[in-house]
Amino acid sequence: MKLRVDVEATDGAARVGTVRTSRGIIAVPAFMPVGTRGTIRALSTHELSGLRAADGSGADVMLANTYHLMLRPGAERVAELGGLHAFTGWDRNMLTDSGGYQVFSLDPSVTDEGAEFKSTYDGSRHLLTPESAVHTQELLGADIQMVLDVCAALPAGREILAAAVDRTARWAERARMSHGRTGDQALFGIVQGGTDHDLRVRSAELTVALDFDGYAVGGLSVGETREEMMPALDAALSVLPASQPRYLMGVGDPVSMVSAVMRGVDMFDCVLPTRLGRHGTLLVDDGRLNIKRSEFAVSDEPVSTRCGCATCGNYSRGYLRHLMAVGEPAGATLCTIHNLTWMMDLMVRLRLAIAEQRISELAAELEISHASLAPGG
Amino acid sequence: MKLRVDVEATDGAARVGTVRTSRGIIAVPAFMPVGTRGTIRALSTHELSGLRAADGSGADVMLANTYHLMLRPGAERVAELGGLHAFTGWDRNMLTDSGGYQVFSLDPSVTDEGAEFKSTYDGSRHLLTPESAVHTQELLGADIQMVLDVCAALPAGREILAAAVDRTARWAERARMSHGRTGDQALFGIVQGGTDHDLRVRSAELTVALDFDGYAVGGLSVGETREEMMPALDAALSVLPASQPRYLMGVGDPVSMVSAVMRGVDMFDCVLPTRLGRHGTLLVDDGRLNIKRSEFAVSDEPVSTRCGCATCGNYSRGYLRHLMAVGEPAGATLCTIHNLTWMMDLMVRLRLAIAEQRISELAAELEISHASLAPGG
Repeated sequence: MKLRVDVEATDGAARVGTVRTSRGIIAVPAFMPVGTRGTIRALSTHELSGLRAADGSGADVMLANTYHLMLRPGAERVAELGGLHAFTGWDRNMLTDSGGYQVFSLDPSVTDEGAEFKSTYDGSRHLLTPESAVHTQELLGADIQMVLDVCAALPAGREILAAAVDRTARWAERARMSHGRTGDQALFGIVQGGTDHDLRVRSAELTVALDFDGYAVGGLSVGETREEMMPALDAALSVLPASQPRYLMGVGDPVSMVSAVMRGVDMFDCVLPTRLGRHGTLLVDDGRLNIKRSEFAVSDEPVSTRCGCATCGNYSRGYLRHLMAVGEPAGATLCTIHNLTWMMDLMVRLRLAIAEQRISELAAELEISHASLAPGG
Repeated sequence: MKLRVDVEATDGAARVGTVRTSRGIIAVPAFMPVGTRGTIRALSTHELSGLRAADGSGADVMLANTYHLMLRPGAERVAELGGLHAFTGWDRNMLTDSGGYQVFSLDPSVTDEGAEFKSTYDGSRHLLTPESAVHTQELLGADIQMVLDVCAALPAGREILAAAVDRTARWAERARMSHGRTGDQALFGIVQGGTDHDLRVRSAELTVALDFDGYAVGGLSVGETREEMMPALDAALSVLPASQPRYLMGVGDPVSMVSAVMRGVDMFDCVLPTRLGRHGTLLVDDGRLNIKRSEFAVSDEPVSTRCGCATCGNYSRGYLRHLMAVGEPAGATLCTIHNLTWMMDLMVRLRLAIAEQRISELAAELEISHASLAPGG
């Protein structure tokens, strides 16, 4: 089903609004936490459901990784158990990736047919094709699924990038043709092209020509600088239809996000806040805070006096530091709760800033406090 | 402060009622979850606070281990941060052990002065004395603290047990004398004596003569059979004053618990339900269930349709099995939530059975379903 953005307010190219899926509403700009194997690491889905931003809003979408779920417990198994929502107990929107990103990191053997790879679980060989990625994601049953694309590692020469764009387009067409679950599931196309502007435009044109339910920009946040990323993003966005959602994949640092939002991006996902949290790095308004530092051992202050999360409401920095120091799993859980809440609060701040026409101000603020965070963590 | 049991109903020697500490009420019989380093492993204290038995009651007491906390982060540090309640965010009753149980498992060098041991964290040497155990627990600031006792490994000869009883009595007196925080903290004496009935009586008499705020029976559930344990428990209980709480240390299997309750025991602690949960073994009404078994992979049933916990309310056996199979930490958390809720429900059943004069029936039921569980896990 085709998704549209109901725009409520704009500030330049930035827009605040809602996207309605067959399941429910996504307030955009949206950050989607990554629940790799069907849950956020160190957090249960019912706990994720309970997290609240300052305005009472929660996480509207959880992302899950097809690569992991197709291998464990298997897409057929998830379908047997009622699909991803019933399986995970998460009743809001879900988005699955195609599995391609993980598979391409495993040095697969790639032909026009698809990518053959060895499972990291048991070494067994599998072939991922544009059609199998669609079929697998139909079985998983997320509300939004992604096409299989070719993500070239950067830096890459123009020929490699061009070949990736062309194969991505051929695969996108096959995915579009094989998608059967169109009644309750949206299929997003993905723009590739590395940091080459012409290729980004070409890839976007080829993708838009296939008339997808929404559009993503992939292949960024893979090692390039923010100065290289943004013009490439601009080139892709110049072609994508304004009426439909635009999703920038794998980007979750505050500075890149606000910068992308100012260019018209609606959706983001990133492992950054959860991965940082598990290792004791906490997102705070003036940057980040490594809770494992010895100075925090004697602190009876919360991580943030302005944060409404359970971690800041119940525990001191000294206690969190203790939990991380002795390896109590609750430490990772509490830091994850805080970082996800901070991200949800950031989205509220972004949406409010757009509505109040002061997104540039917020961008300048974030540039000062969070410039040191890399896009993908 | 001296603690008393306000008895509401009895069934034979079994009693249901409340114990009032300076902090609040403990409904007895009570099961106390073990929060070793200041939290239940794989569970935050605010989550523990939210767990509810079928009648809406929660966990009234959390136990924490002095051995671990005195070494990490250190008792002075906990005191600086406001004591255990402020430190852990747990605002209900807390009980700390003396540290002796862990220290005696480390093959310490024991003299009449105390036990010298090597820290499992960094190999540093420490001396634990009756006085230092009291002082450390005053700094930690739990509502109930325990004396340092000598726990002999079973089986042991009569001389070894007798020496342990005598040293325990001498240490108990020193602990009693050195306890300063008597306004808001109860100090419990501990009865030793292994499985020797005369020594249990002698140890109980020596302990009661010191006029403690409450009494525990220690040194059981250390490898002996239930048939050896119960007569030893009877011998100790025959001497302990009925007006005060009686705490059976380290016992948490349902059959031993109901059996001890029928002898007049009020309080229990055990790592069993949480340790079993972390390894995927779930307590259910007809025994236990190893969620990692492959047969559960295709089950869309909850662990128990009669349980009101978040795990049974939100997730299937198939999903839990998946989380445990791929090593997602949320699996351990969800199984822990269920097992603790099951234990809380068991206490409600015990309290109700006493009030309704049918504790023997419940004991017969539990004997059929849970006889295979060892006392201490």
